Amino acid sequence: MTAHILTIGDEILIGQIIDSNSAWMAEQLNLQGIRVTKIISISDTAEAIREALDDSFAKTDLILMTGGLGPTKDDITKKTLAEYYGVGMSFHEASFERLSNMFARWGRATTPAHREQCYMPDNAKILTNKAGTAPGMWFATGGKIAVSMPGVPYEMKYLMEHEVLPLIASTFPGKPIIHRTILTIGEGESRIAHRIQDIEENLPPHIKLAYLPNLGQVRLRLSATGDDLVELKKALDAQVALIETRIPEFIFGYEKDTIEKVMGALLVKNKKTIATAESCTGGLVAHRITSIPGSSTYYEGSVIAYSYKLKEKLLNVSSELLNTHGAVSEQAVKAMLKGLLENLGTDIGIAISGIAGPGGGTPEKPVGTIWIAVGDKNKTNTLKLQLGKSRSNNIKYTATKALDMVRHFLLENA
Amino acid sequence: MTAHILTIGDEILIGQIIDSNSAWMAEQLNLQGIRVTKIISISDTAEAIREALDDSFAKTDLILMTGGLGPTKDDITKKTLAEYYGVGMSFHEASFERLSNMFARWGRATTPAHREQCYMPDNAKILTNKAGTAPGMWFATGGKIAVSMPGVPYEMKYLMEHEVLPLIASTFPGKPIIHRTILTIGEGESRIAHRIQDIEENLPPHIKLAYLPNLGQVRLRLSATGDDLVELKKALDAQVALIETRIPEFIFGYEKDTIEKVMGALLVKNKKTIATAESCTGGLVAHRITSIPGSSTYYEGSVIAYSYKLKEKLLNVSSELLNTHGAVSEQAVKAMLKGLLENLGTDIGIAISGIAGPGGGTPEKPVGTIWIAVGDKNKTNTLKLQLGKSRSNNIKYTATKALDMVRHFLLENA
Repeated sequence: MTAHILTIGDEILIGQIIDSNSAWMAEQLNLQGIRVTKIISISDTAEAIREALDDSFAKTDLILMTGGLGPTKDDITKKTLAEYYGVGMSFHEASFERLSNMFARWGRATTPAHREQCYMPDNAKILTNKAGTAPGMWFATGGKIAVSMPGVPYEMKYLMEHEVLPLIASTFPGKPIIHRTILTIGEGESRIAHRIQDIEENLPPHIKLAYLPNLGQVRLRLSATGDDLVELKKALDAQVALIETRIPEFIFGYEKDTIEKVMGALLVKNKKTIATAESCTGGLVAHRITSIPGSSTYYEGSVIAYSYKLKEKLLNVSSELLNTHGAVSEQAVKAMLKGLLENLGTDIGIAISGIAGPGGGTPEKPVGTIWIAVGDKNKTNTLKLQLGKSRSNNIKYTATKALDMVRHFLLENA
Repeated sequence: MTAHILTIGDEILIGQIIDSNSAWMAEQLNLQGIRVTKIISISDTAEAIREALDDSFAKTDLILMTGGLGPTKDDITKKTLAEYYGVGMSFHEASFERLSNMFARWGRATTPAHREQCYMPDNAKILTNKAGTAPGMWFATGGKIAVSMPGVPYEMKYLMEHEVLPLIASTFPGKPIIHRTILTIGEGESRIAHRIQDIEENLPPHIKLAYLPNLGQVRLRLSATGDDLVELKKALDAQVALIETRIPEFIFGYEKDTIEKVMGALLVKNKKTIATAESCTGGLVAHRITSIPGSSTYYEGSVIAYSYKLKEKLLNVSSELLNTHGAVSEQAVKAMLKGLLENLGTDIGIAISGIAGPGGGTPEKPVGTIWIAVGDKNKTNTLKLQLGKSRSNNIKYTATKALDMVRHFLLENA
């Protein structure tokens, strides 16, 4: 079973936005055993849409479209689809009611444009979009399926997860492709590949291994295709177990885990609380910790001390220490950690100070010099990073590393 | 003049990587007056490549390809192109010499795979790739151009800038397309459309308007094509000026601005410093402020107080106030702001408290209830948000709104 993904809208064609929707959709379709053979971005004109539908339906039975469903004049996907299928459009009462209720909750009235959004092609199955105002649509004619969704990423994802993927699964029961993903932090792609080289070389032919590196993390994805799901799962489990014996210290989780989620679960398990003192990461560590629902049970708070003054005032770091060793030093992050634990009263703390760049570097401490301290009142682990020149990469990499240091600290001292 | 962009390789089709090359290429082509009418990702099979070339040459005279030029077995683009054009391949001495010299500088020898990379189709103009090992290729037959480049982003960019774009400019002297993007926060797509309806309806035929919404922000993009660049710029400026008069309060910037960048520039201009007290946004506001290089000149730091205890200890909020009104209340964010300004000593502060969800809601204060206070020691603006159930959307939307409130505060009180 194959599919095409069709992205409608000029914003991709003029390079204003990067198409991240298609990659996500392709991944989801793959998990259901559907191979995406083409991803196409076209302009939002009726002619381009009709032509793309004809071209794709000549090659595949399933087209997933995003874009062009908004309430404004440039949004012509719905009208074009009705014309393409030669059907009229009718007012969809249920969609308008949902929309009106939504606006009523916000204390606002709907506009005529919102009413317009609820006229739907007569042959479409309407897919309720609880993440936005434009419903999705499912067209099935002569074994050919076209699905239309909004291009706003979280609306598309909502519709895919709650409506489209379940419908696809029941319409096209495919040959299973299953995946296991092993998540690692702390070692590069080539070194991991070297350590598991013989495992990779001896993989059975129906199992494939891919390395997906990203800023200090490497995901190892094993994929298997075949007829017998039970056998496939067993075969993948055996390979995962083999890999685990080789690189246990780098594996922090599986599948969709994140380091902040794994760290949070470990804190809950060990009944420990945590706080953070950030300088150069500027709140990203706190943001990632608190992005996990329920983090309030173990996360107390954070002090983001960009200036010397705040490091002194909120974290009791002496100006003498700062003047002697500088704010970017092992001494400084240790002192920040000590002050943090004293002032915020948590079991564990993270302290970070560094030069994220692009400015602020010196010959002794160039851009990318970053210190991290993680510990409790008895023990502290410190780490010095020497990263590159990209501010945004330095901040992200450091946050990941700091969260992983907490994981190691909890595993070693539990 | 139009072009298609063709991306070759399975990594995009299985969702392993996001195609960021195409957006960059499209932007560059647009600047040269070449309209990209289709972006296509296909598998790295000879059949898929041949089919895509035929399909695209039926619609356009210019195809830009990336991918499939590496040294491994799955890299078949070059061979397929030679077959497609019915030509042989010859050893390209100059390319091999360049490659050998490059490796000699690194103290390494070339491998047979590198020699293989220097066999080039006989009808190709060879494009020197100083950023990598695989040369680019330019095929011109009967007024139809195909260009093949490596998929590695910095190699593709090198070839585009140094070889491909200059060649395109001399081959197809184009009609310019220019864009202006107006960035707004604070009003939905339909309401903005309603307020500028007559402007949109009266746009001259060579100017197009598109709405690009995303979590509380709407970008309005005006695009114009024509012969006279000066005239086009004037025509777009006039439309931008018209729109500005209708929705001045919502416009925070233009083109690639971000609200955190615009807010930072306003703080610099007004010589003001800022600090943040975050609860439910958990550090995202601080992270966004500090993602801007140079933010240390106006950003002092932040207190992230998740617990009542820290709200009392670090922000001087009385337990009596918290017990009477709750942490999610106008009184609480005002008190947090007051404590923040006292303790951190900045000119301006942001205080946020709310229920991001998915847990923690009550009938009186359901999930998505969030209070923001922005102000200085003399004046405070507060705002209550009633958002949805998605923790991540609630956090992002609130952060955007808070940063925009600072912008408004600075404009009103400067």
